[in-house]
Amino acid sequence: MATVYVTRVVHFNAAHRLHCPDKSDAWNQRVFGRCNNPNWHGHNYTLEVTVAGEPDPQTGYVIDLGVLKRIIHDRVVTRVDHRNLNLDVEFLAGINPTTENFIVAIWDELVGAISPGRLYSLRLYETERNYAEYFGNDRSQPRRA
Amino acid sequence: MATVYVTRVVHFNAAHRLHCPDKSDAWNQRVFGRCNNPNWHGHNYTLEVTVAGEPDPQTGYVIDLGVLKRIIHDRVVTRVDHRNLNLDVEFLAGINPTTENFIVAIWDELVGAISPGRLYSLRLYETERNYAEYFGNDRSQPRRA
Amino acid sequence: MATVYVTRVVHFNAAHRLHCPDKSDAWNQRVFGRCNNPNWHGHNYTLEVTVAGEPDPQTGYVIDLGVLKRIIHDRVVTRVDHRNLNLDVEFLAGINPTTENFIVAIWDELVGAISPGRLYSLRLYETERNYAEYFGNDRSQPRRA
Amino acid sequence: MATVYVTRVVHFNAAHRLHCPDKSDAWNQRVFGRCNNPNWHGHNYTLEVTVAGEPDPQTGYVIDLGVLKRIIHDRVVTRVDHRNLNLDVEFLAGINPTTENFIVAIWDELVGAISPGRLYSLRLYETERNYAEYFGNDRSQPRRA
Amino acid sequence: MATVYVTRVVHFNAAHRLHCPDKSDAWNQRVFGRCNNPNWHGHNYTLEVTVAGEPDPQTGYVIDLGVLKRIIHDRVVTRVDHRNLNLDVEFLAGINPTTENFIVAIWDELVGAISPGRLYSLRLYETERNYAEYFGNDRSQPRRA
Amino acid sequence: MATVYVTRVVHFNAAHRLHCPDKSDAWNQRVFGRCNNPNWHGHNYTLEVTVAGEPDPQTGYVIDLGVLKRIIHDRVVTRVDHRNLNLDVEFLAGINPTTENFIVAIWDELVGAISPGRLYSLRLYETERNYAEYFGNDRSQPRRA
Repeated sequence: MATVYVTRVVHFNAAHRLHCPDKSDAWNQRVFGRCNNPNWHGHNYTLEVTVAGEPDPQTGYVIDLGVLKRIIHDRVVTRVDHRNLNLDVEFLAGINPTTENFIVAIWDELVGAISPGRLYSLRLYETERNYAEYFGNDRSQPRRA
Repeated sequence: MATVYVTRVVHFNAAHRLHCPDKSDAWNQRVFGRCNNPNWHGHNYTLEVTVAGEPDPQTGYVIDLGVLKRIIHDRVVTRVDHRNLNLDVEFLAGINPTTENFIVAIWDELVGAISPGRLYSLRLYETERNYAEYFGNDRSQPRRA
Repeated sequence: MATVYVTRVVHFNAAHRLHCPDKSDAWNQRVFGRCNNPNWHGHNYTLEVTVAGEPDPQTGYVIDLGVLKRIIHDRVVTRVDHRNLNLDVEFLAGINPTTENFIVAIWDELVGAISPGRLYSLRLYETERNYAEYFGNDRSQPRRA
Repeated sequence: MATVYVTRVVHFNAAHRLHCPDKSDAWNQRVFGRCNNPNWHGHNYTLEVTVAGEPDPQTGYVIDLGVLKRIIHDRVVTRVDHRNLNLDVEFLAGINPTTENFIVAIWDELVGAISPGRLYSLRLYETERNYAEYFGNDRSQPRRA
Repeated sequence: MATVYVTRVVHFNAAHRLHCPDKSDAWNQRVFGRCNNPNWHGHNYTLEVTVAGEPDPQTGYVIDLGVLKRIIHDRVVTRVDHRNLNLDVEFLAGINPTTENFIVAIWDELVGAISPGRLYSLRLYETERNYAEYFGNDRSQPRRA
Repeated sequence: MATVYVTRVVHFNAAHRLHCPDKSDAWNQRVFGRCNNPNWHGHNYTLEVTVAGEPDPQTGYVIDLGVLKRIIHDRVVTRVDHRNLNLDVEFLAGINPTTENFIVAIWDELVGAISPGRLYSLRLYETERNYAEYFGNDRSQPRRA
């Protein structure tokens, strides 16, 4: 049997600010620098969503990537695109929107909604030069190769 | 000892149609939508071929990427470039050319021809936003890390 | 007054075949080589549409790029995406779909539909390494700089 | 004599909101849609700055691109990177930061500071699919070709 | 009649050093900095060659891009790829290989060899962030738009 | 607990030559072809450095990517950028600078300097079409998923 990994790439943009409200302004300024600007800054994000599974014998699909695109749009893109990640996004409430925290929160929104196949990994570009990847925290998950 | 993974990227283009001949036209139209167009559509494909191995002490190569390029061209590119994947490609005969089925078929063409080193993975872009990856189905294969 | 040029980039894919029906099969094979495959091949095309004009004092737009996107989709993308350029596209009937002929035909579909602003140029990528540009054939058109 | 055009590409990111304060909220919402979000959104911008001139016989440079980079950083990048374009940028005060208005304002900051050579054009990407170009409004400027 | 501009993109890599032999080592070090390293450095260059003309009524081509590719390879790529631009390239003898000087020298190698169509412009990337463009120095050349 | 992988992408350029001094010139010419040019050639390299760890509860960072950028610059970029890999780089002394040997040498420079988090992988592009990846040779290292 052949496990194949299929990926859909989507784009969105958002404003955000890195800030830990439990800490002083001086701590936040020192730790986050320009990313702590109280007037916000923003990014064009690129999100890659990878689903693992065996191709269906009839369709030849692990998952129809049009279906996957719609799931990602309904669960993630419509809620974050052209938004303020600190103020506008329910699933990020109380979360400092670093790329690391953001990608884990996106995973939690998507992991139960993918079918057929199982969510294997996410890659989230904040810029062309900075990105994060996440594979979930389920230790029983089958390994890649 | 150090296992290094080296990758060669190649490009080709082809026409295809997603269609399951065992099913009705209505089923095919519903499942594959525009990809079922009986007059075909097409893509510029990008294929990434990754070979794993230890660098040779004398050459410093896992595999000479010029040699790898020639293997990929002889085994894959010359047979699919500027072709119709449903009609012209012997190694796809009877296979519905989804990205998933196509990448598994390419693996089978390449896996026995790579030397030195062993074929580790393939990545196949159908568009910039849709791609598949395959690592073979040999469970005894050493894991990545 | 400040003329600004704004561009919207769109993607589509299609099958085609280069073939001149007035000529013999031998001539077509010699001139077009692999691009003459009677079973078709295909591409992911990228189209860049540039509109020139002065930004509106109230909106700050030459043209709302969301509006421009819809015009391009209605006039071009919905008619060529996942199609066979030789068989399925009315505005290409009787035209050998080289990139050159295709870009001129797209211009003719778009030039009367752009408002506000005026269509300034098109760029059409057939592959990452081959593209065409067209600026219309109206000699009275204001020059770029 | 040979006029050569040299270009330096820079990146920055910022938050903004499209909004015309002379108009009602309903007008702004209708015209700018999601781009009018009162909580802001943001982008990774890419700016290409093109300088025209004849290569210096001794250096072979139109302008040292390291010098050009520093001019762009001092005049533009340090003032807009990780900023809110509506609130934080003096040279955008009172300007609705569409890509069109933004590129004209950047031109005005740069045009007097380029030496040797003369500023020929700017290209500003708001996303990979949307960009603006500007060549200044000086009709006496030599034409491109 | 419709003038269309077609472009072929090619890649090559080379070592070079920026150095003006008429000047002192101190002058060269001050002007060219790290680019003056006497042990050389190098780049992956990308060259875009644009040819203008009217599509041939029978072929639909301004110029067959496969033919253009061969001209560029014979005249330029085979002479500069995997070479030292200061030591190995006859058409650069005595020329300080800045991007500006290099692009003018490439123009001179190509301009007489393009047929059908006429060489319209070159774009030469030294890195993703630095590039030069050249349109020749023939003032009688028809303007772009 | 959530392991996240964060990546910083950096660029540099260098000259090099593939050559095994223990072997004859004929052997080197046969094995390395154009890459054996005694006058050198060169590349724009792209290096991706991936660090694995759990996001810090206060900062939300696995590692501050600005800190990671400085580590990479101090340990690698300042020593290889605009250099000759065979002549100028102490940590490559006696090493034939294939991409494979180069990536292992970079790993050894970085692996002890990364904190917080642990170095997980490197990817090194020599051209857009050729790259290597390395995950270290520590078999006790936790697996990816």
